[in-house]
Amino acid sequence: MKEIGVGLLGFGTVGTGVVQGLAGNSEIIGHRLGVMPVLRKIADVDLEKDRGVQVDPAILTRDAEAVIKDKNVQIVVELIGGSGAAKNLVCLALSLGKPVVTANKALLAEHGAEIFGLARKNNADIYFGASVGGGIPIIRALREGMLANNVQSIHGILNGTCNYILTRMEKEQLPFDAALKAAQAAGFAEADPSLDIDGIDTAHKAVILASLAYGSVFPMAAAHVEGIRKLSDLDIRYALDLGYRIKLLAVIKHSDGKAEVRVHPTLVAKGNVLASIDREFNAVLLRGDLAGDTLYYGRGAGREPTASTVIADIADVARNMIAGSPCRVPAIAGNGKPQEVRSMAEVRTRYYLRLSLPDKPGTLARIAAVLGDHNISIASVLQQEVRTGEHVPVIMITQQAVEDELDASLAAIDAMDVVGEPTVRLRIED
Amino acid sequence: MKEIGVGLLGFGTVGTGVVQGLAGNSEIIGHRLGVMPVLRKIADVDLEKDRGVQVDPAILTRDAEAVIKDKNVQIVVELIGGSGAAKNLVCLALSLGKPVVTANKALLAEHGAEIFGLARKNNADIYFGASVGGGIPIIRALREGMLANNVQSIHGILNGTCNYILTRMEKEQLPFDAALKAAQAAGFAEADPSLDIDGIDTAHKAVILASLAYGSVFPMAAAHVEGIRKLSDLDIRYALDLGYRIKLLAVIKHSDGKAEVRVHPTLVAKGNVLASIDREFNAVLLRGDLAGDTLYYGRGAGREPTASTVIADIADVARNMIAGSPCRVPAIAGNGKPQEVRSMAEVRTRYYLRLSLPDKPGTLARIAAVLGDHNISIASVLQQEVRTGEHVPVIMITQQAVEDELDASLAAIDAMDVVGEPTVRLRIED
Repeated sequence: MKEIGVGLLGFGTVGTGVVQGLAGNSEIIGHRLGVMPVLRKIADVDLEKDRGVQVDPAILTRDAEAVIKDKNVQIVVELIGGSGAAKNLVCLALSLGKPVVTANKALLAEHGAEIFGLARKNNADIYFGASVGGGIPIIRALREGMLANNVQSIHGILNGTCNYILTRMEKEQLPFDAALKAAQAAGFAEADPSLDIDGIDTAHKAVILASLAYGSVFPMAAAHVEGIRKLSDLDIRYALDLGYRIKLLAVIKHSDGKAEVRVHPTLVAKGNVLASIDREFNAVLLRGDLAGDTLYYGRGAGREPTASTVIADIADVARNMIAGSPCRVPAIAGNGKPQEVRSMAEVRTRYYLRLSLPDKPGTLARIAAVLGDHNISIASVLQQEVRTGEHVPVIMITQQAVEDELDASLAAIDAMDVVGEPTVRLRIED
Repeated sequence: MKEIGVGLLGFGTVGTGVVQGLAGNSEIIGHRLGVMPVLRKIADVDLEKDRGVQVDPAILTRDAEAVIKDKNVQIVVELIGGSGAAKNLVCLALSLGKPVVTANKALLAEHGAEIFGLARKNNADIYFGASVGGGIPIIRALREGMLANNVQSIHGILNGTCNYILTRMEKEQLPFDAALKAAQAAGFAEADPSLDIDGIDTAHKAVILASLAYGSVFPMAAAHVEGIRKLSDLDIRYALDLGYRIKLLAVIKHSDGKAEVRVHPTLVAKGNVLASIDREFNAVLLRGDLAGDTLYYGRGAGREPTASTVIADIADVARNMIAGSPCRVPAIAGNGKPQEVRSMAEVRTRYYLRLSLPDKPGTLARIAAVLGDHNISIASVLQQEVRTGEHVPVIMITQQAVEDELDASLAAIDAMDVVGEPTVRLRIED
């Protein structure tokens, strides 16, 4: 069988998965693809580590550039991650006209315009299926399967670490810190978990999905990002009482000519399928004007699932090489219009509010009056008999309201002398 | 923008959706695809009917063959359905080397070997994404996204009519006949519902998925098929009591060198995500050795969802034409081995049994002895105090057992003088 040469940059967890997958499933891959992808070179800074996988030592090198320039390497697979060294290497490969497969969401979210531009200029493929959703073929579904659709919205649980932490917080009534420690002990959170828990990783992925959906490269600055670090288990419990689960959602929408891209802890009604996604799993709910709602669920990270998608991308690139049709599917298919972004201040949504109020007559009426002054209607109120000092938590669910009016009303409310701790505000997606 | 000519055979529900989708979303389709698919001819037996969509009368014809042969038609879209006229027309198009997009599961399930062979011989594409799962891009996920995986199993709810009926039966405690009438009234079942309720439609789709997963065209005869016509609402209720929902599942598995393809009412534990798929929705749970479990959910039928997938297929074919790379992805990528099929008699699974037994001591022991003689262990027993004449229903859940041993044990049990009505047997998937 004809061979196609693959050069791997980064021999870490996913890199090892790709090496194992290509070796272990070579027969099935060869039969389905018609050619055999063969690893010709692997670059990593650490050549000593035992990765539990057999590799000819002759193909290992510390020189990533040499891998890219090797004439036997036809496809470059970048699994280094981050936007430091990886960026220069991806740009080098593309500028030489070599196709790139990458799982690097940070790189694409932070430097997408430059990288996609370079790929187009050099007529070189860049495939990035594993950058969002790990083993779930969501990028393939979005850019090819949903081609005929105006994408109305995407709601995604895109970070397994956060979802695992939120699940433990809810099921075991743990505070955030304890749930984070549990996630670290279980191998679902890094020693430095900031990228995950502060919502950055989710935002990287959201920006990529938005770019695919709306045909314009969104910069990270287009995304509003809040993580789960400050989320109280109190709010998880009150939300449950009201019929909601709290998830770190990526919310991507389009209406009235503007796109919104936001990442924040979000109340999701229990009946919604996204509410039932537990532990380290990921899910994406895509709404298209023709297809309606479609949901994609699976393992959003991990060695084998991510390798599964990386190899599927290698196969796509290989097919394009065989056919002499690079850039068969453009990385980001422009819809011909620059994309306007809705500022967070203009976003309309429903809110969950936890107010800290004295348990005395008339207080609620004063709060309702302030909200009313800002065009905010209350849908429901829950006042529990749990006392925190002199104040009791009062939970309100609002009707749809505009974010800047909500902000203004909370500023006014929190300035009132009767109000205790600052009001907690979370958004709701229906 | 360059145009690519499309000829449509069949101007029914889905055909109308394709016409509307191509017209309504032409801008976005053109931008993403780089060429504009344009309807050049539409064939249907009924040219008078008002379909609520504007079409130049000059492109309408009753002559389907002329559409195929029209030199301005580069892609033939077959939406007639069934394996009568549609078969000859698809074969004609392929034999002329014209690529075909079809949503016709019956045709592919019943004549797959011939049609896929003809496509290969003439180097003509045949895309059939809409034949399974309507608007859910499950075929794309399976044949491209999961390329690197050995597919271990596929569990699918593939028929919206049956799932709607089962949902109504469960939620409203309706007998089958009443739920079928409700489905017909709601537009989710045909006047003649046999194809759906007898499991044939699900089996057509199962055979296609199995062929894609295991690289060998499965004939319909490979599938074991039971529908839901004889399902009693009693069993739905008992299953619920035991923590299960009953779904019409397509079960596709591979082990020890043999594939099994079966369609039957199946108990699914409530915690399993497939148990929560209600009403007319479809879902497919795919297990790959690398990707792990991935789930795909959405509308499995209907005008717009099906049109969404048909247009995505048109786009794929168009890209292949532009690149001069027909059959870029083979319709069914052989894995190089003919596929052995496991006979139903050899299938191992757990069972739900509803026995009709007199409420007197010793009976259960006699039943257990017969089961034991056939190597069948009982996992749990539920005896309710509902009396049906002299006999009471006794529900048993077995451990894993082999189908022919189960059959033999039930023959022996039903021949016992103490046993009332014949034992009801349903299979369980874990």
